[in-house]
Amino acid sequence: MTVVVGCLGGGQLGRMLALAGAPLGVGMRFLDPAADACAGQVGELIVGAYDDPACLERLADGADAVTYEFENVPVDAARSVGAVPDPRSLELGQDRLVEKKLFRRLGIATAPFGSVEEVGVPALVKSRRLGYDGKGQRVVESQQAIGDDELAESIVPFARELSIVAVRGATGETVFYPLAENEHRGGVLAVSRAPAHDAPQRAAEEIAGSLLDELGYVGVLAVELFDLGEELLANEFAPRVHNTGHWTIDGAETSQFENHLRAILGLPLGPTTALDPSVMINLVGATPPLERLLSIPGAHVHLYGKEPRPGRKLGHVTLVDAGEGVVADAVALARKAWTA
Amino acid sequence: MTVVVGCLGGGQLGRMLALAGAPLGVGMRFLDPAADACAGQVGELIVGAYDDPACLERLADGADAVTYEFENVPVDAARSVGAVPDPRSLELGQDRLVEKKLFRRLGIATAPFGSVEEVGVPALVKSRRLGYDGKGQRVVESQQAIGDDELAESIVPFARELSIVAVRGATGETVFYPLAENEHRGGVLAVSRAPAHDAPQRAAEEIAGSLLDELGYVGVLAVELFDLGEELLANEFAPRVHNTGHWTIDGAETSQFENHLRAILGLPLGPTTALDPSVMINLVGATPPLERLLSIPGAHVHLYGKEPRPGRKLGHVTLVDAGEGVVADAVALARKAWTA
Repeated sequence: MTVVVGCLGGGQLGRMLALAGAPLGVGMRFLDPAADACAGQVGELIVGAYDDPACLERLADGADAVTYEFENVPVDAARSVGAVPDPRSLELGQDRLVEKKLFRRLGIATAPFGSVEEVGVPALVKSRRLGYDGKGQRVVESQQAIGDDELAESIVPFARELSIVAVRGATGETVFYPLAENEHRGGVLAVSRAPAHDAPQRAAEEIAGSLLDELGYVGVLAVELFDLGEELLANEFAPRVHNTGHWTIDGAETSQFENHLRAILGLPLGPTTALDPSVMINLVGATPPLERLLSIPGAHVHLYGKEPRPGRKLGHVTLVDAGEGVVADAVALARKAWTA
Repeated sequence: MTVVVGCLGGGQLGRMLALAGAPLGVGMRFLDPAADACAGQVGELIVGAYDDPACLERLADGADAVTYEFENVPVDAARSVGAVPDPRSLELGQDRLVEKKLFRRLGIATAPFGSVEEVGVPALVKSRRLGYDGKGQRVVESQQAIGDDELAESIVPFARELSIVAVRGATGETVFYPLAENEHRGGVLAVSRAPAHDAPQRAAEEIAGSLLDELGYVGVLAVELFDLGEELLANEFAPRVHNTGHWTIDGAETSQFENHLRAILGLPLGPTTALDPSVMINLVGATPPLERLLSIPGAHVHLYGKEPRPGRKLGHVTLVDAGEGVVADAVALARKAWTA
C-alpha cells in the first residue's frame, strides 16, 4: 500500500471504507477509544481518546489524508489533523439549531423549529447535541419551557423519509446517488430502498448541492429529508458516509465508500448510477445464522465483526433486483433476530 | 470475526479471498515465505516455509478451514493441515502428465500428448512440474528425446482460449460461471472477456463437472480450454480461484472468492450469473497512475499492493457493460505500462 488514510472513528463505516480502499491500494489507520473497534480487523487501529494529541499525531503521521466516520468527534481534534471534509461541516452538524439555521439561510425548507411556543404542540423536543438514531428525542404535548441545549420541532405529517447521498470532489465536481426511501424501527434505520419510487431527485440534489457548495465540502455527505408530497423538508445532514448509502456497495456502479476515498484523495469520482433496484436491510441487536442469510437468493451479506448488543447495528444485507417475496422473507428474518 | 480461514500462500489471490471474506465475518491468516506477501496487508501473515511444521501448526490453530491459493504448495503440507479442496487435487494438478492422463481417463479431450515422437513436430515441450504463466515451455521443431520431467504436446490450431470457473459445495452441489475468453501476452494472461461470445458453455460445464465429481472437490476450480470450433480440448486445471475469474468480483452476482469461502466453510453457494458483459484487464510489470485508471469511465480498479517488477501481476481493472472504445483505451493504457 502506498497510500495511507487516517480516520477518526473505527466503527463499521470505517471498516467499509477500508474494504473499499484496499483494492485502490489505500491502507487505513483508525483512531478509536474502543480496543475492539471493528475497523481494527481490516486496518491499523490506534486505541485512544479522539483528542489525545499523541494519538492524533500517530494517526496523521505520513497519511495522505485524514477523514472521520463519526460526527461526534471533537472539532478541534479533526482540525488539528487537517481532516477532510473540512471540520466546519462537523461543527455545524453537531448542533441541531445551528444546522437548521444553516438550512434556513440557504433557502432549504425545514419543519418549523425553535421553542415549544414557536412551533406549537405536539412537538418533538431534541437535544441539540450528541443525538443519533433517535436518541435524545421526546414528544411534548403541552406548552413548556425547554433547555438551552434543546430544540423543539413541529411534528410534520410526512409521507415518507428519504435521503440523498452526495459526493463533492476536490475540484468541486459533484455527483449524487439516487434517493433512498427509509424505514425506521425504534428510531433506528431498518430498511432502505433505492432508487426511491417516484422520488423528487432533482429537488433533493438542489438541497444537497447547495449545502456542499456552501461548505466547500470534499467527500460524501448525506441529507435526510421528509417527503410531504408537495414539499421536501431537510431534516439533518451527516458529514460522512451514511447507513442509507450502504446499498451502493452492491447496487451502484461505485460505492459511497470508494467515492468518499476518491474525493478526499483528489482522485476522479466514479459513476453513481444504480445497477438495479436495491433493498438494504439492517441487522440490529443480533444476527440470524450466516447460513440462513446466505440462503436468501442473491443476498449480499455484510457483517461488521461487532459483539451483539441490543440496538447495535451488527451488519446489513443488500438485495439487488430481488422479488417482493424474497425481500419480505429477508426483512422478516432480520426482524426476528432484532426482536429476539 | 468469529470465523477463521487459514491459507497456504499469501499473494493476490489470498488477498482477494480476504477482502471477500471480511463482509461475511471471515478473518484470514496466511502462510507465505515472503515477508512482504501482499495478503498480509489485509489479514494475518505467518512468514515461513510452506512445509515448516511450526508454521503449519500456527496456520491451522483454531481455524474453521484451511485452503490454498497457490498450486505449487507441497502436497504433504496441505494434507497435514487438512486443507480444502482435498490436496489430491493439488497432487494431480502439479504433474502435467498425471493431469492429462486424468483428463483422458474421464473421457475429456486434450491435445495429443506424450513423447515428441508420439505427437509429431512442431511440438510444445513443457516441464511436467512447476510451470505457470508460460514458464518452462519451449517449441521444438525436430524429433528429439525429452527428459522424464518433460511432456510434449501437439500444437493445436485453436481459435481461442476459454476457461471455466466452477464451484462445488460441501454437499456436492455444483455451480458454474459463464465461460471467459482469454488473451495472453508473453505467456501471461492479459485480458479476459466474460461471458465469452457464442461459447460452448454446456460442453465446458460437463468437463469441469466430471472433474469436480471425480475429485470429490470442494471449492473453486478452473479449467483452461482450447476452443477448436468443432471441439473443446482441456488444457489444464487449477485447483484454486483463478485469474480468469477476477471479473466475477464486479461482473457477477457472487464473486469466485466469496463462493470459494462459502464452499470450504460448508455454506450455501451464491448465484454465478453475470450482471453484464465484463472485460478484465491485467496490470503487469507496472501500473498506470491511479488517477488515469480511475478516469476510465466505470473502471473497477484492483491493485494488489505488490512492488513493481517486470512480468509481475500487480493488479487488474474490470469494465462492466463498457463500450468498445472505452475497452480499447483501457487495454492500451495497461499495455503501455506493461511494456514501459
